[in-house]
Amino acid sequence: MSAPLRILVTGGAGFIGCHLCEKLVASGHRVVALDNLLLGRRENLAALAGNELFSLVVGDATDPATLDAIFADGVDSVFHLAANSDIAKSHAEPATDRVLTFDTTFTVLDAMRRHGTRGIVFASTSAVYGEEQGMLAEDHGPLLPISHYGAAKLASEAFIASFVANYGMQAWICRFPNVVGDRSTHGAIYDFVRKLKATPGRLDVLGDGSQIKPYLHADDLVDAILLAWNRFDAPVNLFNVGGITRCSVARMAQIVVEESGGPAEIVYGGGDRGWIGDVPQVAFDISRIASLGWSPRLDSEAAVRAAARWGFEAQA
Amino acid sequence: MSAPLRILVTGGAGFIGCHLCEKLVASGHRVVALDNLLLGRRENLAALAGNELFSLVVGDATDPATLDAIFADGVDSVFHLAANSDIAKSHAEPATDRVLTFDTTFTVLDAMRRHGTRGIVFASTSAVYGEEQGMLAEDHGPLLPISHYGAAKLASEAFIASFVANYGMQAWICRFPNVVGDRSTHGAIYDFVRKLKATPGRLDVLGDGSQIKPYLHADDLVDAILLAWNRFDAPVNLFNVGGITRCSVARMAQIVVEESGGPAEIVYGGGDRGWIGDVPQVAFDISRIASLGWSPRLDSEAAVRAAARWGFEAQA
Repeated sequence: MSAPLRILVTGGAGFIGCHLCEKLVASGHRVVALDNLLLGRRENLAALAGNELFSLVVGDATDPATLDAIFADGVDSVFHLAANSDIAKSHAEPATDRVLTFDTTFTVLDAMRRHGTRGIVFASTSAVYGEEQGMLAEDHGPLLPISHYGAAKLASEAFIASFVANYGMQAWICRFPNVVGDRSTHGAIYDFVRKLKATPGRLDVLGDGSQIKPYLHADDLVDAILLAWNRFDAPVNLFNVGGITRCSVARMAQIVVEESGGPAEIVYGGGDRGWIGDVPQVAFDISRIASLGWSPRLDSEAAVRAAARWGFEAQA
Repeated sequence: MSAPLRILVTGGAGFIGCHLCEKLVASGHRVVALDNLLLGRRENLAALAGNELFSLVVGDATDPATLDAIFADGVDSVFHLAANSDIAKSHAEPATDRVLTFDTTFTVLDAMRRHGTRGIVFASTSAVYGEEQGMLAEDHGPLLPISHYGAAKLASEAFIASFVANYGMQAWICRFPNVVGDRSTHGAIYDFVRKLKATPGRLDVLGDGSQIKPYLHADDLVDAILLAWNRFDAPVNLFNVGGITRCSVARMAQIVVEESGGPAEIVYGGGDRGWIGDVPQVAFDISRIASLGWSPRLDSEAAVRAAARWGFEAQA
């Protein structure tokens, strides 16, 4: 492993951020998590409380002064995860993703430029591919996202590339699939668990249940990110990460009902997608990250089941 | 031709905008040009002064209130050209392209959403392709721009795609090459003319003169844009426009010296590019726009020569 670094994790109290912070600290790095706690939660970081390698700064990644204060103590690398992760929400208010998902990236990049920080690992998304069909590899084009979330992530990738070229930075851009697991703050499984806790015996599902996607457990995702960060060495390292096998929304609903412990009627709303901006069928080419020896320990159904089990045990 | 429309042209007093406004008005459309006159010039629009189909609003496309006032009178379509077109400038201040090239796009899109305007024609750029080699078609990937200008244009494309998907808009995204011609406000020919007027007999050229690119005359570009707008009909219509043949910077310097009327020594600065973010070799696949019957009337050298001739006759 490389020498211990001081690492900034934006969105560090969020669903994926908290898993990442734990693994970075376990590797001996000093970690500062920056989170505005809009979607992130202090309790996600409970395992790191009191650890001298870890600190949480509550603030906005869009605020240059907040970033300057963190960078003033020296930051070797940034893992930039802060974003609006609620894709469905921004249809009515597109500025949400523009500010929380794009402006955060630009502001972080500009702070790195001012302070001479070179490395950035970026949480991008399969949503950059829009509705393109087939096995989508990293060099696929055109990129016409159908959600503002995907647009803001693609806009972020664009400026990461230009900052790398202009200021000698180095970037690892990881395009995430649907990620599930413990400490999730949103998403279909989260919603299903919440609904079944509120109304046992009945589960209302948006869409007709036919959407079929790969799901990846957060632990497997974080392993992939850290492996790529240690092993890929181009100026811009772009890689898909995805789940193996796929799981339909209908099967996900069955699994969540099974994990709830009781029977429930599943009622579908109809239509081939859950919300505007939802992509009904997705498949990714993950051969690049697989070439490093990575493969997920949990397939899509197992990841969904693990996330549902956590939901009934611990979800607030 | 379609029925007369009320059209907003952002950046309408700029180099390409003024050519576009003239052709739209000549086709019978009502045109409102919005320009902050940072790079655009009132005198570029001299031919339209007093024309009742035309008006100029001096203001920023990043100001929602300015846009609301224009849209309140009804806007059928937007041609969004407003941008920082000085690629070299933004290395030292990346916020320039973020504000003038990206924020303008987002603010215009959001105004269209609020006012129910469906059509947007967008001036994108070959710079979205970064340093990729080979014949670059519209579906090329990955897109890793090396200039903030290219990044801000790609970021704009991303949100255009998501606004189209979310609000039933329709877009024509035209990726421009190097464009030259009369009323240019910047660029290599512009600089060469300015230098030779200031110091006849000597022309200092950035780089080693080996960069070789296609150049397109603004008149040919505007014809391509209007043809595509009338003939392509997908939700998002993405097309390259490019010059035929290519011209090296060394040959461009020769042509400009020839058009200056007197001999001059050409002195090269060295290096394979003129500035950080400059792409030394570019070739585009323009078969999509060519499939409509378009081809430029002027090849690259003829376009450069026409631009240089205008420079010595009229450039301020």
